[in-house]
Amino acid sequence: MKIDILTLFPEMFEGVLGASIVGKAAQKGLVSFRLVNFRQYSGNKHGQVDDMPYGGGGGMVLKPEPIFRAVESLTESGAKTGGEIEAISDSKKPPRVVLLCPQGKRYNQKLAEELACEDHLIFICGHYEGYDERIREHLVTDEISIGDYVLTGGELPAMVIIDSVVRLQEGALGNAKSAATDSYSTGLLEHPHYTRPAEFRGWKVPDVLLSGHHEKIEKWRLKESLRRTLTRRPDLLEELEETKEIKKMVEELKQEL
Amino acid sequence: MKIDILTLFPEMFEGVLGASIVGKAAQKGLVSFRLVNFRQYSGNKHGQVDDMPYGGGGGMVLKPEPIFRAVESLTESGAKTGGEIEAISDSKKPPRVVLLCPQGKRYNQKLAEELACEDHLIFICGHYEGYDERIREHLVTDEISIGDYVLTGGELPAMVIIDSVVRLQEGALGNAKSAATDSYSTGLLEHPHYTRPAEFRGWKVPDVLLSGHHEKIEKWRLKESLRRTLTRRPDLLEELEETKEIKKMVEELKQEL
Repeated sequence: MKIDILTLFPEMFEGVLGASIVGKAAQKGLVSFRLVNFRQYSGNKHGQVDDMPYGGGGGMVLKPEPIFRAVESLTESGAKTGGEIEAISDSKKPPRVVLLCPQGKRYNQKLAEELACEDHLIFICGHYEGYDERIREHLVTDEISIGDYVLTGGELPAMVIIDSVVRLQEGALGNAKSAATDSYSTGLLEHPHYTRPAEFRGWKVPDVLLSGHHEKIEKWRLKESLRRTLTRRPDLLEELEETKEIKKMVEELKQEL
Repeated sequence: MKIDILTLFPEMFEGVLGASIVGKAAQKGLVSFRLVNFRQYSGNKHGQVDDMPYGGGGGMVLKPEPIFRAVESLTESGAKTGGEIEAISDSKKPPRVVLLCPQGKRYNQKLAEELACEDHLIFICGHYEGYDERIREHLVTDEISIGDYVLTGGELPAMVIIDSVVRLQEGALGNAKSAATDSYSTGLLEHPHYTRPAEFRGWKVPDVLLSGHHEKIEKWRLKESLRRTLTRRPDLLEELEETKEIKKMVEELKQEL
């Protein structure tokens, strides 16, 4: 998978793209990154990439030319024709061009799984400026928001999406089992975990987990997963296909709560 | 504001905490950061901070002792023991101890504004491991999730929260007006922005924005904000206090769509 990032702050990415699972995936050749400072495509000697908004008001707006040119530089045909983006020769699919912005589609695990199947992702990160609307209309394939909060720029959202997508690449995680039991993957929040010591400052690990009785342990874990989901994220339960066992447990928990 | 980050990957933060608004806020003395690798509090010569889960199963679980010790080192009692950390006697409130995890409360701008009023935030970032439940129960004040997607660790969520909180500190943003018109701050998604050139590859800026007629421009912007919110995030409209003008525009837009 190829991942290209357009940003005015490439140095923000260094610590994150080199570390941990993402860094290891790059070392293994599962993913390759290119950081593109689109200021180099400004086309003027001052490196100006933003300008005042038409119609007045505060803030600056990212100009269309540097972003279009930068994206086109990353794709063969675009570079030749200067038009909208088409497939690049060594990829099977055309790139997804992702704009990070608060107005975008809300990011979730399903969208992560969708993006994880792509060959080529291009992220456009603005930074406190707005984007000229023509970038959205004629260049971008996806507008994504990672949540309902205001951030300084698109860099952190791009890192979040990259992390979630790269860890889904085959071979990226050492322990495949971890991925399958993560929260959201099962549709329930994870049950509580305990490790040694069995007693810490007077707080003990539940007896059942020390019992060695696997069936009881699995039942306890499922019930605690359900309890946590019921109290914290009841909306997730609505989307779950409930077995008889789960239905019974949910009824019990509702009476306990 | 003091912000402390417990992580096994402190190098991930360097590019982000030094850059842009967050870096400038630190330079201005509005916020100070301490990165604490809690492996130094493992209490064993191998630096082991995780262990197998009681009850079996895949994955590792972060042990309680290193995290408790690291957090305690950041508060008064720990300062006396001679670590790198100084006392927090000048803080008016006890620290908020934030655990980043998928089971946490969903982060949003309201929670950002709440955290922005604190004197001292401590973030605990686990990394693919689970957390021993006693950390949640007896140490942490807030469990927060930035969204419904699976990430490799708590580091990126911590960065996201820090960015959103630091930019709300008085004096952090150069242009105060930008903060007030951001998406979510007005309750509506932002209207489209345009800047020069007035025509780019045949795509023109809407005439009204070139008209110089401020009243018409404001009306167009409000209507386009409403249009974008209505088509992309109708849930936000439900929470909005609608004026007569907005009600009328929404009715018009519903007929257009």
